[in-house]
Amino acid sequence: MDIENQLQQVLNNEIPLTNSIGIEVDSVTENCVCLKAPLENNINHKLTVFGGSLYSVSVLTGWSMVYVLLKRLNIEAHIVIHHSEIDYLLPVNEDFKACCESVSELKINKFIKMYKRKGRSRIMLDVFIMNGEKRAVHFTGDYVIHK
Amino acid sequence: MDIENQLQQVLNNEIPLTNSIGIEVDSVTENCVCLKAPLENNINHKLTVFGGSLYSVSVLTGWSMVYVLLKRLNIEAHIVIHHSEIDYLLPVNEDFKACCESVSELKINKFIKMYKRKGRSRIMLDVFIMNGEKRAVHFTGDYVIHK
Repeated sequence: MDIENQLQQVLNNEIPLTNSIGIEVDSVTENCVCLKAPLENNINHKLTVFGGSLYSVSVLTGWSMVYVLLKRLNIEAHIVIHHSEIDYLLPVNEDFKACCESVSELKINKFIKMYKRKGRSRIMLDVFIMNGEKRAVHFTGDYVIHK
Repeated sequence: MDIENQLQQVLNNEIPLTNSIGIEVDSVTENCVCLKAPLENNINHKLTVFGGSLYSVSVLTGWSMVYVLLKRLNIEAHIVIHHSEIDYLLPVNEDFKACCESVSELKINKFIKMYKRKGRSRIMLDVFIMNGEKRAVHFTGDYVIHK
């Protein structure tokens, strides 16, 4: 099974609410992971996306980036979110996609090295959601992996 | 209709996803607004509550506090979240309740005065979720009201 389908199954099986949100894996490359969701499932009375849905898709996009990285390196670890911040820059009034770009190789190496030494490590990731051409959401998540 | 039922209707009608999350208004007093949700709807594979659900209930609890305040003062305004931060201190492994305590009268007066003068104002609110006797989540939201 390819990594996109594997990730889709993990999200839907491990967190049933992702089915209500309608989360779909959009794309997975070494440098970027994107998840998407429809406006319809997440709409509010202003016909824009509910802020909690924007957050949920963002936090799972960062989580997925860590998941994909660990899979690639054949490392088993629990991935949890410890702290996060979100800026709502513009409303989102369409189906939306959240993307997390990989951090530098230096940061990844440090992250993995620490995990191998201490059995616990953390990494900070940024996720963006666009509305048309403009940045609508900026999410920053502090993820911890542990044995 | 009492304020609890009114708020429940607003949440369910304006944001359909609240039905999937199973959000219920727990209590509304002048000093505190609490919303609750069941573990079952929001569970993840670790048998704890999904971080996106904890966030969604928290952000709506702060929103509800502003909604109730404006209702009480007979002020009509749009309420939106602009920025927020969340700390996941402990996992939540049971049905949960998010509570937002009111800020000081001084802050409320400033918030309302600014809105009346400029048609726009902001307020920062804290929301907590407990797991048993311990704080499991600390959410801080920066809410804006505008005409």
